[in-house]
Amino acid sequence: MTRLTREACAALDADDPLAPFRDEFHLPEGVIYLDGNSLGPLPKATPERLRQAVEQEWGTGLIRSWNDAGWIDLPFSLGDRIGRLIGAGPGTVAVADSTSVNVFKQLAAALALRPGRRVIVSEATNFPTDLYMAQGLAALLDRGHELRLVSAEEVPAALGPDVAALMLTHVDYRTGAMHDMAAVTRAAHAAGALMLWDLAHSAGAVPVDLDGAGADLAIGCGYKFLNGGPGAPAFLYVSKAIQETYRQPLTGWLGHADPFAFEPGYRPAAGIARATTGTPSILAMRALEVGVDQMLRAPKAALRAKSLALAETFMAAMAQETAGQGFRLLTPADAARRGSQVSYAHEGGYAIMQALIARGVIGDFRAPDILRFGLCPLYVRHEDVWDAVRTLAEVMRSGEWREARFARRGKVT
Amino acid sequence: MTRLTREACAALDADDPLAPFRDEFHLPEGVIYLDGNSLGPLPKATPERLRQAVEQEWGTGLIRSWNDAGWIDLPFSLGDRIGRLIGAGPGTVAVADSTSVNVFKQLAAALALRPGRRVIVSEATNFPTDLYMAQGLAALLDRGHELRLVSAEEVPAALGPDVAALMLTHVDYRTGAMHDMAAVTRAAHAAGALMLWDLAHSAGAVPVDLDGAGADLAIGCGYKFLNGGPGAPAFLYVSKAIQETYRQPLTGWLGHADPFAFEPGYRPAAGIARATTGTPSILAMRALEVGVDQMLRAPKAALRAKSLALAETFMAAMAQETAGQGFRLLTPADAARRGSQVSYAHEGGYAIMQALIARGVIGDFRAPDILRFGLCPLYVRHEDVWDAVRTLAEVMRSGEWREARFARRGKVT
Repeated sequence: MTRLTREACAALDADDPLAPFRDEFHLPEGVIYLDGNSLGPLPKATPERLRQAVEQEWGTGLIRSWNDAGWIDLPFSLGDRIGRLIGAGPGTVAVADSTSVNVFKQLAAALALRPGRRVIVSEATNFPTDLYMAQGLAALLDRGHELRLVSAEEVPAALGPDVAALMLTHVDYRTGAMHDMAAVTRAAHAAGALMLWDLAHSAGAVPVDLDGAGADLAIGCGYKFLNGGPGAPAFLYVSKAIQETYRQPLTGWLGHADPFAFEPGYRPAAGIARATTGTPSILAMRALEVGVDQMLRAPKAALRAKSLALAETFMAAMAQETAGQGFRLLTPADAARRGSQVSYAHEGGYAIMQALIARGVIGDFRAPDILRFGLCPLYVRHEDVWDAVRTLAEVMRSGEWREARFARRGKVT
Repeated sequence: MTRLTREACAALDADDPLAPFRDEFHLPEGVIYLDGNSLGPLPKATPERLRQAVEQEWGTGLIRSWNDAGWIDLPFSLGDRIGRLIGAGPGTVAVADSTSVNVFKQLAAALALRPGRRVIVSEATNFPTDLYMAQGLAALLDRGHELRLVSAEEVPAALGPDVAALMLTHVDYRTGAMHDMAAVTRAAHAAGALMLWDLAHSAGAVPVDLDGAGADLAIGCGYKFLNGGPGAPAFLYVSKAIQETYRQPLTGWLGHADPFAFEPGYRPAAGIARATTGTPSILAMRALEVGVDQMLRAPKAALRAKSLALAETFMAAMAQETAGQGFRLLTPADAARRGSQVSYAHEGGYAIMQALIARGVIGDFRAPDILRFGLCPLYVRHEDVWDAVRTLAEVMRSGEWREARFARRGKVT
């Protein structure tokens, strides 16, 4: 294998059809940002869009903006645009609540659609909040529902006639491993179960075709690869095939058939609207919309090609520059099974990441020993990857990560 | 009774200790805004605070702002500040989700704390989303829970040994009638039930003393009298007395005892944090914080005194200027039983409100026949009330409200 160099990385960047997008982001001086899988950076267009929403829509339009600025339709008009990023047709996606709340709604709906079945299957290593919400739902129902947690390999065997729903995160938050959405969905359906996908690390990051895969339900996140801002609203998907029979328990006014009739009894709205609950933050949706519209302008094939190429560069640079330093690759070598991040285990992971951040290379750490590096093709360059790995090599070579100032403390790791 | 005049109103305004607050709001030219009970106006400080949160905290701080800018504590630090407006001590209020979602959490928690009891009592005319959420919860539980809907007068008689929770909106969204929080809470407790207050039309509008009244649970809204912006995050209150035994079913990562340990099993956090669920919008909380901090600067006694005085002026002007026009006052004459709005019924209510709005006086309409006027003492003047009523009188005198352009249509009334 030829030796990787900074010049070779620069040559890849020179050929990058997505290169112009980088200038659309506010990227702080002296920072290489590889944590867009946790919080996407600020699109330069967002402050002006928010200023306009605040000063014009809220400040001047006041209550009239619910009609005049289209606020009342925003969960659905923005949902439709997110749908185009995840292979979901118009009227199947709504922006609503948080990913956690949406998991609860979707699982409750799935159990109601499979009343004789009492099992939810998921991965033991799924993102914890998904599991917590399933636990909360099962405890609330108190009817003997079981959350059956298995490894990814054990999923097919876990799908029996007692399974109401299979809930998986499409791209693993720790390792970046990606499920075959179509194949797994088929397996769930073959067992008579509904398929719920968590797209937190997929939307805007990898090709997704929910309608094509025949998925039933999905949820996703606005603040990671969609660059919607901290705590951006989440979204949920309900396939056309089950919308008429879909019922979720958080039956708030926005999901009512006639929200402004103020009837005392709940009647579900037609279509995806019945999956919504209360009033979402308009300002937060205006910020999210900028990230989504930007992502829609990027050619999908180029996004995936560059994402995979960045990961190849990262892994090659790591192999070359940090060999023997104790890093163990967690991300699948097979490109078809990878999301848009690269992860390594290292027993000193926490301190190493702190030392790396102190040098301006921002990835993140996940317990117990995982260093994660998000590779967002809209703004990360091959040169950035090279510089990040070289900095990591320097952190290891110098031994600075062993200094007391990088030892674990604080709330957010 | 002396005849009310514009000059008399101006004299009241000249004596108003809250007058300087008006200039802190962006109030559009040519508009008299009496709909702050639906969506509060924009504080002038909000755009700059949001710009700073977007550009500095998100843009430059990126993921580091979860610690460095205090994002992780914001639901609780802002909750504590809201607590000071509603008589709730530190550690009893969190900013979270929407009011609808919070109703679900609080009711589920109440039922869990009263396992032998199957009835939730509320008013038939309570805000519909509160009733919808109770219906959704009861249907999900499928264990014979009953939502017992009565009139305000019938509440004491409805409180039997089968009642788990009494859920009331403190200030009625239609009429502006206010419950006696301490007395009603005592009645609920005497029956062994938990008391859940909806403060949507109370927080920032009327004196509230949750701790003093011995209330168990409450929820409230950020976008009405707290001026937090469209769809601002909601809040919830859990009294210190029941926090240790409180369990709610939307057990998301933010409510976990150790959110960053990424354990597979949920363990509730200590204190109010267990009432939270997923990641809230940081930008939306930064906007809400401006409205809350502003409200905290206003002397509480002056707020209530002016609110009541504005209502007296409104009612006197209506009696004098629109006598014989078919308006029926819905708001209690007794000041101790009033919130911070005045409402009238009129069979032509919808069209009259549209005609009024067309002339720049913004109140709102609620089905079937109610005109609502919110009276927010921070920015509404007695002169505004006078001008609003005179404009309404002109709308009636001219008969313009009968024009076809004001007939009912559209989504948001």
